[in-house]
Amino acid sequence: MSVARTGEFGLIARVTARLQPGPGTLLGPGDDAAIVAAPDGRVVASTDALVEGRHFRRDWASGVEIGHRAAAANLADIAAMGATPTALLVALCAPPGLDARWAEDLADGLAAEAATVGAAVVGGDMAGSPTLTIAVTALGDLAGRRPVTRDGARAGDVVALCGRVGYAAAGYTVLSRGFRTPVLLVDAYRRPKVPYAAGPAAARAGATAMLDVSDGLLQDLGHIARASKVAIDIDRSAFEVPPQMRDAAQALGVDPYHWVLGGGDDHALAATFPSDRTLPEGWREIGRVGEGTGVTVNGKPPKGPLGWDHFAS
Amino acid sequence: MSVARTGEFGLIARVTARLQPGPGTLLGPGDDAAIVAAPDGRVVASTDALVEGRHFRRDWASGVEIGHRAAAANLADIAAMGATPTALLVALCAPPGLDARWAEDLADGLAAEAATVGAAVVGGDMAGSPTLTIAVTALGDLAGRRPVTRDGARAGDVVALCGRVGYAAAGYTVLSRGFRTPVLLVDAYRRPKVPYAAGPAAARAGATAMLDVSDGLLQDLGHIARASKVAIDIDRSAFEVPPQMRDAAQALGVDPYHWVLGGGDDHALAATFPSDRTLPEGWREIGRVGEGTGVTVNGKPPKGPLGWDHFAS
Repeated sequence: MSVARTGEFGLIARVTARLQPGPGTLLGPGDDAAIVAAPDGRVVASTDALVEGRHFRRDWASGVEIGHRAAAANLADIAAMGATPTALLVALCAPPGLDARWAEDLADGLAAEAATVGAAVVGGDMAGSPTLTIAVTALGDLAGRRPVTRDGARAGDVVALCGRVGYAAAGYTVLSRGFRTPVLLVDAYRRPKVPYAAGPAAARAGATAMLDVSDGLLQDLGHIARASKVAIDIDRSAFEVPPQMRDAAQALGVDPYHWVLGGGDDHALAATFPSDRTLPEGWREIGRVGEGTGVTVNGKPPKGPLGWDHFAS
Repeated sequence: MSVARTGEFGLIARVTARLQPGPGTLLGPGDDAAIVAAPDGRVVASTDALVEGRHFRRDWASGVEIGHRAAAANLADIAAMGATPTALLVALCAPPGLDARWAEDLADGLAAEAATVGAAVVGGDMAGSPTLTIAVTALGDLAGRRPVTRDGARAGDVVALCGRVGYAAAGYTVLSRGFRTPVLLVDAYRRPKVPYAAGPAAARAGATAMLDVSDGLLQDLGHIARASKVAIDIDRSAFEVPPQMRDAAQALGVDPYHWVLGGGDDHALAATFPSDRTLPEGWREIGRVGEGTGVTVNGKPPKGPLGWDHFAS
């Protein structure tokens, strides 16, 4: 049944029936606003919009998978501050012909991804639009910790990474060429595996700067370099290219390091740590912070456009 | 200059340069997430999306005015819980040809409306989209108060209203027929005057249920009636139709009470109070809560479709 037939309130009822409150949900969907616990006395908040044809395609991933991706993109931003996600709010703008079932699947994916970190979908909005758009806001709690921003990296720090890079970008390329395998890469694009708990762990271990890799590792490290007024040098040998990625790259005539160093959407966490600290579990060293500006790979500037501009056509 | 030429990061820089932190802004735009004070240990959160052609038209209102409207729609939801707004997050999905100046104007309007209640725009996202879409999330603080939800109205309560109803809907009709006056109505559509402080005041005065009138008074009171399992009867004589609205209604062949009782977008606050309470300043009685179900006007069911379905075409 189309959302035009269920109507706004019918669709809201169908979707909210699928949502479970989380431990921090003090008031869930159905009123003017939701109420979420903020025990720390501060709330961490981030918002991200996904637009059909630009950030997702319904023929490349299911509604459930797109829900996971949309949630992951926002939950990762909360983790990258060193905080624990507590809640999601979701505005769905949908064409009247959208199958209400797809919206239910989307809600299931959003809720399931949120539940992996103890968060819940607590509110939202539905609006008609010619362009299917999912705008998600994530909230989180710092539990008394200092937030890890982008401007704290210091010369001499270690650059470290937790999570995968290049997998989702490789999956995107594979799908865009009309293939559906390797499953490892396609699934990475459809449902990113984000190391959420590594964010608070890095904060506790004294990370000096942190972000999630959403636009490409080198571009995103560039944000840390600029905000912290430092130079960052990455060691290319720190990145292992898995055989499936190597084979796909060869078949498609692509340099796999373009995916690894320039691809977003895996939502790995990248951080800098004082060099005398032991990296928390799951984190690995990939480079060093130095005096100066910019990001280099083995001492040299990266070649070509590595990163993602959301207005580029 | 188009947003495609400024690029995502260029546009973000231009827009964030115009934003001022508020008293509750602990970390503003520029990192993975913002941090907002939540001194109450709870955060009130609501999200609403505005879609071009459906919720706004660029030839009917300026970017600044559309910013005011988008902010008002969300800030009113926070006030309707009895809370004080603290922050806005804004996802702007824009066609590549959009003038960056328009996005700056929008930011100015959002920030100015937020500032009227001591809130600030603390974060956001920019994405390319064929459909200009503004998704806003508002956060707020209850300052220790019990939230005023929709399910607390009791038989015998007084129904009260604070703010204007029908003005924005009348302005919308006037604009849709190609007119630009009366200014009173057109301005009400372009820049709603929301009595934000009346929300916390109602909570302090013991309001039993509250919401903001966004879809039409009778439809929205229907939400209270359903959630509270009560009947609501409205006294039509409680509504004064100003001369400008009466004249416009006559000229356009419209019943002005269709606007007053069925029009949204003014974001008045409607609430129920125990009958022994003195209504706070600015609130006026418009009806009574009784046993039963549904909303009536002078004891009779309202005629015709009064309200707004966001998927209806």
